[in-house]
Formats: sequence, C-alpha cells, structure tokens
Amino acid sequence: MPSYKAPVKDMQFILHDVLKVSETGTPGYAELEPDFTGAVLQGAGKIASDVLAPLNPVGDKEGCLLENGVVRTPTGFKAAFDQVRGGGWTALDQPERYGGQNMPYIMYTAVGEISSAANQAFTMYQGLTHGAASAILAHGSERQKDTYLPRMTSCEWTGTMNLTEPHCGTDLGLMRTRAVPQDDGSYKITGQKIFISSGEHDMADNIIHLVLAKIPGGPDGIKGVSLFIVPKVLVNENGSLGARNGVACGKLEDKMGIHGNSTCVMNYDEATGYLLGTEHTGRRAMFTMMNEARIGVGMQGVAQAEVAYQNARAYAKDRLQGRDATGVKNPKGPADPLIVHPDIRRALLDQKSFVEGARAFLLWGSQMIDQSHRGGDAAAEGIVSLLTPIIKGFLTDEGFDMTIRAQQIYGGHGYIEDWGMSQFARDARIAMIYEGANGVQALDLVGRKLSQDGGKHVMAFFEIVKSFIKKNEGNEALKADFLDPLKAASKDLQQAAMYFMQHGMKNPNAALAGSYDFMHLFGHVCLGLMWAQMAKAAQEGIQAGDGDAGFYQSKIKTGRYYMARRLPATAMHLARIQSGADPVMDLEDAAF
Amino acid sequence: MPSYKAPVKDMQFILHDVLKVSETGTPGYAELEPDFTGAVLQGAGKIASDVLAPLNPVGDKEGCLLENGVVRTPTGFKAAFDQVRGGGWTALDQPERYGGQNMPYIMYTAVGEISSAANQAFTMYQGLTHGAASAILAHGSERQKDTYLPRMTSCEWTGTMNLTEPHCGTDLGLMRTRAVPQDDGSYKITGQKIFISSGEHDMADNIIHLVLAKIPGGPDGIKGVSLFIVPKVLVNENGSLGARNGVACGKLEDKMGIHGNSTCVMNYDEATGYLLGTEHTGRRAMFTMMNEARIGVGMQGVAQAEVAYQNARAYAKDRLQGRDATGVKNPKGPADPLIVHPDIRRALLDQKSFVEGARAFLLWGSQMIDQSHRGGDAAAEGIVSLLTPIIKGFLTDEGFDMTIRAQQIYGGHGYIEDWGMSQFARDARIAMIYEGANGVQALDLVGRKLSQDGGKHVMAFFEIVKSFIKKNEGNEALKADFLDPLKAASKDLQQAAMYFMQHGMKNPNAALAGSYDFMHLFGHVCLGLMWAQMAKAAQEGIQAGDGDAGFYQSKIKTGRYYMARRLPATAMHLARIQSGADPVMDLEDAAF
Repeated sequence: MPSYKAPVKDMQFILHDVLKVSETGTPGYAELEPDFTGAVLQGAGKIASDVLAPLNPVGDKEGCLLENGVVRTPTGFKAAFDQVRGGGWTALDQPERYGGQNMPYIMYTAVGEISSAANQAFTMYQGLTHGAASAILAHGSERQKDTYLPRMTSCEWTGTMNLTEPHCGTDLGLMRTRAVPQDDGSYKITGQKIFISSGEHDMADNIIHLVLAKIPGGPDGIKGVSLFIVPKVLVNENGSLGARNGVACGKLEDKMGIHGNSTCVMNYDEATGYLLGTEHTGRRAMFTMMNEARIGVGMQGVAQAEVAYQNARAYAKDRLQGRDATGVKNPKGPADPLIVHPDIRRALLDQKSFVEGARAFLLWGSQMIDQSHRGGDAAAEGIVSLLTPIIKGFLTDEGFDMTIRAQQIYGGHGYIEDWGMSQFARDARIAMIYEGANGVQALDLVGRKLSQDGGKHVMAFFEIVKSFIKKNEGNEALKADFLDPLKAASKDLQQAAMYFMQHGMKNPNAALAGSYDFMHLFGHVCLGLMWAQMAKAAQEGIQAGDGDAGFYQSKIKTGRYYMARRLPATAMHLARIQSGADPVMDLEDAAF
Repeated sequence: MPSYKAPVKDMQFILHDVLKVSETGTPGYAELEPDFTGAVLQGAGKIASDVLAPLNPVGDKEGCLLENGVVRTPTGFKAAFDQVRGGGWTALDQPERYGGQNMPYIMYTAVGEISSAANQAFTMYQGLTHGAASAILAHGSERQKDTYLPRMTSCEWTGTMNLTEPHCGTDLGLMRTRAVPQDDGSYKITGQKIFISSGEHDMADNIIHLVLAKIPGGPDGIKGVSLFIVPKVLVNENGSLGARNGVACGKLEDKMGIHGNSTCVMNYDEATGYLLGTEHTGRRAMFTMMNEARIGVGMQGVAQAEVAYQNARAYAKDRLQGRDATGVKNPKGPADPLIVHPDIRRALLDQKSFVEGARAFLLWGSQMIDQSHRGGDAAAEGIVSLLTPIIKGFLTDEGFDMTIRAQQIYGGHGYIEDWGMSQFARDARIAMIYEGANGVQALDLVGRKLSQDGGKHVMAFFEIVKSFIKKNEGNEALKADFLDPLKAASKDLQQAAMYFMQHGMKNPNAALAGSYDFMHLFGHVCLGLMWAQMAKAAQEGIQAGDGDAGFYQSKIKTGRYYMARRLPATAMHLARIQSGADPVMDLEDAAF
C-alpha cells in the first residue's frame, strides 16, 4: 500500500527561505514564523499520514453508494471527517467572526496540498465547502453569512457548486435551470445539474448548494444567470433545521477516479432558493468560487504528483533490477536498485523538479492572493488573475503526467491496483477537466488575461523576471545554470506574446491556435523563475552556514535539472505557436 | 457508448499509394492487390464493429472471475471467440501446413490494429497465442510443431508467455523458476510467474504456456535460462487431451484496465514441461516472442489512439458549446459545434496526424519483417531490429497521450465511465509497460541497437531519409512543408547520435541519460519521414486524377500539421540530450 509523508521541510524552505513570508509586510503574515508554520504543517501532516492516506485506497475501492436517496460514503470517511473538523482543520483561513482561525490563504494552500495528496476525494468535501463559503462571504447578506458561514466553517454543513447541466458545461449561457421569484422574496428552483462533487453524502447535517439558474424574463445567455443558495434542509429562523428542500441526488456517476467523492446528478424540483448577491450577477459570484477553485485544482495536480513521486522514489531505491552500467553499486545484492539507472533518475527528476517548482509557484500565487485580499494590492491581484489559468492548466497537465511517470517506474506493478499508483493517476486525471477544462484555461489566458488592463499584468510579470535577472547578474554561480536559461525562456515567451499581438488582431485564430502551447510555455517560464529564486535562496542558505547544506545543495541540483532538461520545451512551444493558424484551421471539418 | 469503424480507406492508402505493396517483389506480396486487401480489411472491420466493439465495455465492467481454479471471461467473449476462430481470423499469417492462410505479416498487423482498436483485452487472447506459436515455429521440433501449431493456429488452444516473477521483470537473470530434467527427456517445472496475460480462461480446450526457467547447474544469470512448453492439459501421443498438468492460476490481478483479459499469477508445481529449442538458449527463443510482441504492442498504442480519436471527432462535431471567434458557424443552433474552436482542432489534429503517421510506420516496419522473414533480406532485418524499440516505446507513449487528448475533448463526460473514453486511456496505459517498459526500450535502442553491427542499421536509416529528400528536392510543393522540416529533424537526430558517440564511450551515462529523449526524437523523425512519403503519394494521387482528390488533400494537410506542430519536438529532445549526464546523475540517491 502506498504511503505519504508531508514535505514539511520543502514547504518551510519556500515559505521562509524563498518567500520570506514573515518579512513581507502582508497583513497577517507577521505571525507566520517558522515555528508556527512548521507546527501547523506537521499537524496537518500527521492527520494526513495517519488518517487520510490509509483511507485513500478504501475510498477508491468502495466508492460511494446511493440507496433510497441517501449517499453512503466509504468506510471510515465520516469518522475521519469528524477528526478533521474536530481539529479545526476546516476553519484555517476563515474569518474569526464565523469561527475561523483567520490564517492567510497561503496556509490554506499548503495544508490543502497535504490533505489532497493524502486523499483527494476526501479533501474535496471540505474544498467545495470552502469555495461555497467564500462566495457567500463575498456576496451574501449579513443574515446569509450569519446563517451559513459558522456551520460551513466548521464543516457541520458542507457546500457545493452547481454549474454544469447535461447539455452545457463551459457554455453556461445555454443553461436551462429556472428560478421563479416568490412573494416572500425566495425563488423556486427547477432543473437538473450534473457532475456535482459532494452533492449528497452522509457526513454533514446539511448541504448548502450554490446553484446557477436563470430568472425567467432576464437577459439571454450568461448575462441572465443568477446564483442561489439552496440548502438541502431548510433552515428555520432560529437556525435550527426545518423541512427537507426539493432537491435530491438522482444518480451517482461511475468515474475513472476520485471514487471516494460523491459525484452527483442533482435534481431540483421547485426547491426553495435564496438569491446570493443581486439578480443576473451570477457569473461574477460564480467566478469568486471558480477562481479559488482553480488555484485549488492546480494544487491537486501538484499534490498527486508529490504523493506519486514519494512512492516511486521509495520503489526505485528498494527494487533491485539490473546493474549500474558504470560499475556494480550493490555488490552484496543480486542486482542494483533501480535508482542507479540514468533513465529512472531522469523520470524521478522530472517529477521532483516539477513538484518543488510547482509548489513554489502555488505558494507565490497564494501570497499574491493574500496581498490582494488582505492588503488591497491591485498589482498583485492583476498578476494572480493572469497566472490563475496557468496554475490550473499547466500544473494539472504536468501533475497528471508526473503520476504517469511515477506509475511507470513500478513496471507491471504500477498497473496493478493493489500498489496504488493507478489511483494517483486516475485521481489526478480529473484535475485537467473540472473547474474549466484546460483548453478553456488556455483560452482564458490568451483570449482574456493577456490583454487585460492593456496588457499591464503580463508586463508586470516580465518586469519581475527581468529585475530578478538584473539584480543577480553578477552572481556567477547562478548565471550559466539559471539566469541564462531563464532569460532565453522568457524571451521565447515574449516572442510568443508578440506573435499574438501582431497576428491576433487580424485573425483571432492565429492566437487561439497557439493558446495551449502558450499556456505551457508560460508555465515553464514561471517554474524556471521559481527555480532561479530557489537556487538563490539555497545559495544564501549555504553562505549563512547555519542550515542543512546538503538540503540546500539538493535544491540547486534539482533546479539545475529543471533548467537544463525541462526549460528547452519553451522553444518548441514557440515554434508551434509561430506556425500560426493555417496548419490548425486548413482541414475541412468533414475531413477529420 | 463509443463506436468503432475500421479505417479501411486510410489503410488502403498506405498499402497501395504509399508502400505500393503488390509491386515490391516481397514474397507473398503479389497477391496483395487492392481488392484483396480491401476485402480482408472490410471483413475484419465488420466483426470488429459488430461483435468486438460492443463487447469492449462489457469486458471492462465485468472483468474476469476466478472461481475454484476456473477463470470465467466476460459475457459474450466465448461466443465472439468462436466467431473469430470460425472465420479463420486467427490463422491469417500462419503457414498453410498448420492450417494457416499464409498471408504476409503486414496483413496480420493491419487486421490486428482493427481487432485491437475494437477490443484490446479480447484480442490479446489471440495475440499471445500468435506469439507463442511463432516461438514454437521458430525453435520447436517437427513433433512439437505438429502437436501444437495446428490447434494454436485455429485458437482451439491458446498460448501464453511466462517470463516475469514477483521479484524480477526486466532483469530475468534473477529468475527462480526451476526445470528439473526427467529420465524421459521432459522436465519438472516449479515456480511462480506473474502478470501472465490470458494465463487461464474458459475459451479454449487447452492453454500452451511457454515458460522461462532455469535448469539447475546451468550458467548464472540470463545465460542459464531455457524455454519450456508447458501445456495446461497434457497431450497424449495421439494428440488427444490427457491428464491435467501441475499448473494453476493462483490469482487474478485487479488492474487499471484491460479487465477483459485474465492477468494471472501462475503457479507451477512440478508441472511437466518440454524443452523448446536447446538448453540455456531461452533468451533467444524468448526474443522471438518478444520482438513480435513489441511490434504488436506498438500496434496497440496506435489502435487505442485511433478508436479514441474516432469518438472524440464525432463528439467534437456533435456537441454544441460556445461560438466560433471569427463568426457564428451554426446560426440555427444555440451554439457552434466544438470543432470550430482552434484548440479543439489542435487536439484532434495531434491525434489524427499521429495515428495516420504511426500506422504508416507500423506497416512499413511490418513490410520489412516480411522482407526479412520471407525474403531473407538482412538489411531490412537490421533496420526493423533498430526500429522495434521505437515502434514499441514511442508509439505507445504517444498512443496513450492521444487517448488522454481524446478524453479531454469530452470535458467532464470524458471522466465518466459510461462514455467509454476512460477505458481507452486505461487500456492504452498498459502498452507503455508490458513487453519491456518503455524505459527499457530506450535502453535497448541506445545501449544496443544503435551500435549494432557497427552502426550499420542507423546509417541505413539515415540513407533512406537522405535519398528520399534528394530524390524529391525539385518538388517545390513538398519542399517547405515537408522536406525542409524532415531535413532539420533528421539533422537533430544525427547530432544526438553524434553526441552519444563522442561522450558515451567515456561515460555510458552520457548516452543513457538521454536515451528516452532519443527514442522520442527518433520516433518523430520516423513519423516525419512517413508523412513526407504520404504527402508525396497524395500528390501523385491528385496528379493521376482518378482518385478521391479531397481525401488526398486531407492527407497533405494533416501531414503539414505534423511537420509544423509536432516535429519541432526534435530540437527540444536534442537540447535535453546535449545537456548530458550531469543534471541527471549529480543528485545523491539519498537526496531524492
């Protein structure tokens, strides 16, 4: 059975050596001293290793079961959820007013990675609740907040997001679910929603569904969409639970993975709903959930890659097969461990250099969210808005690929479910799809984010890269291995953006045909920047002389691998982009 | 439910427009006239669409069941196997002497793709039998051939390959299964084998296991390994079935995919075995099966990519979502079909251009096998030996990636098992692993095949590329889109080979660290060569004026996509290779 151990030391390195969080002046960050964050991460790691990880294969094997409208979660899930709730882990970054601990979002991301790595399907029950609570916090009335948030913070009640319908996912303007206004100010919601994660289950007293629907007579398309709070059980004036609402799970989906999470078809039959925010502004409220969810999904990609890597690494050190081509390394054994073979190391380093770079990227993004939400920093908000589709799309594509590489190291055993490597890949696969399929992320990046506010945010990003390179140009130890490749990759990115500017106005398809490559090109530049920053921090750590020099060295070596072996992808993506729209658009539809 | 239709027109194009098989003079090829091959492929396609494809999800859902030593295959499998056997489809390329139809191997490959695409798990029962029969044909005594081959040709009896043991897969020198010589010339086989595809099932009267084992007192390691015929039911002198042999299925593996195939733990307990060939030459006999199996596995990668593509293409034309950025294409509908979106076309063209290029590569490789086996052409044998690890490794890596791209086009529906796209990906995943994990293929390519016979075969390959370019250099319509990119990619490949020559002697790891990239670089050059040849054949087809000009045009456009969008990968692989061993080898094992 696979195991998991939270990478606390790696996380602490990013928080304190690289981002130096407690010195940034971001509101709430002063308390993020190494001892404090270390204790939080260790605590999360303990529950993850002891409770959540052992339940991961259980959830995969048992799945959820729908019987007479009740969804039974896998054995052990409820007890584990009680333990997580009881430990306050669901309240980490919520406002104190509603029972939360008011920690910064960066801590929610770090703890979320630990929990997701141990058990993604389980963690989703809480993750969806967090997203729904954030939407209520941002758009709800005081009364709504007081009614729902305390019990969603504690996860006594969980939450969901109801967007997709059978005939529409990305194109929500086609939505058919209707919300008919009632005299008492509430609405009657009728329609069917699909792919509703955690839509129905036996772990909470109530489930607060946030449902997108159209009010008859409103504007066409996405502009006519509003967001509603639809509790599974209606809540009385005094906060006690009342009658069951007109909402039910019609079916559980049989999925490739995340079997432990209940993916529901939800049927709304004149269910009572309460408008969240104002009429016809559902799209905005939805994006409050979606943008948060997209960071969370990017985090899932990293989390599955991390746990898959941990196990692949252990297997590669343990499994004896073949001999080192340069000389026997384990003369007492019948063969050398797999890790002596260069191609096994290549596969492991792909994983390690991705996971560590991606984690830095995620935490940097989370820091900017804190700067924006807590500090009102509009520049940070702009950059993180630009980077969100990359965090979601690039990190989940790569994260999935890394679980495949990890599985591959096991040879035939990787294909056998008992070993658990298949589950990591199957679970990671969904992250490329939900919260906007990765092609939609690429479209969002190229079609919207790149030119947002006159291209200000992408210019700000380039400025960050440029000023890092400039500031360190005298640093000989960084130059050849880190700064030069980063400069070259960043230049590829600039040329790609230039290509879009020059050709995209005349022909949008010239940009859109390259959108997916652009997302990956940009992702590599981001991870290259992270590795350059990590290498610098590791250098400083070595120079300071009071840390674990071997650990710092391993960061520099891992980063060097990323720069030498992964960054060359940027030139390929640029070449593809510059081949333009014709190769993509020329073939008639009928000829496919 | 997904569907499948054999791509007969595409196959005929390769056989007759590109390879011009009936004009090649290869023994047995004169009969391969378009009408004949068309009829065979149509016939195979009909069974595939009507019988095998509908059983594919059944096999996935039901899997196999072990009860009291008996393995029950999924509902409908036995009846379908009877139909396949009855139609003579298992006897296609076997010698007439043993009841076969003596068709060339190239037809076995083409029909195998059709059958595998429709139902990989099912087709494996026959595929393993074919491999085992080939080993008996190559190494068996006349008596052995007469005893086993007629009934293996008809698949009344099926076959297996028993190589892997719990502690050894790639490194078969560690094998523990023992074969103790008996006075009557037979051997008693004792040991455990794992991952035995089709190891036990209810579709045949007998199962002929080919088992690798060590005869006590023989040489150490792989040199001491011999191959044995171990029938499930012993065969009497007169060919009738006798007593049950000491072999049993101990367990069925729970796998990520190919659920319809019984993957068995096989326990041999003093089972009676008969030496195949001579003592201690098991490795050679094994490679007779393995080399054939590796081509077959590469074919599986293409087959799953093809069927996944067919369904993704249909979904992209059918599903309405969003609007074309350059203007509404389906004004009467609520939205445009997915296929208007450039990024959807990008994903579809990745698949289409891969599948068609890879199929040409496979059939070209199969033609060389025929030239070698039937015509004694040593040059062809050398080239196909060089290309075998690329066919296996590159085509299955890419084939799997393409099933993931196809699944992605379905959005959330792709993750739901009912739609069938998950199965294509899960089934395709095994092809990267079995018959030598793809890392082992890369090692075989770089560590063995590249320098085989003084590098003669790789030089011959370069000569093929060079002479094609030279012969067509006056062809303006091919130059910019096909010849120039092929030349550039081929140059990258030469530089990579040069790098290995210059650095590999001093330090084998300098070559081995780049082996995986080299396999992919080489694969892209092979597909680039195929596309250049296909474009030329299509040009000629258009000029001849008597064919389907639109079809030929679509080949040229699809090929142009491959050259513009996929071939740029070669420069990336070269850059990675040239970064050498240090980034891969520097990190201490303990620091992983």
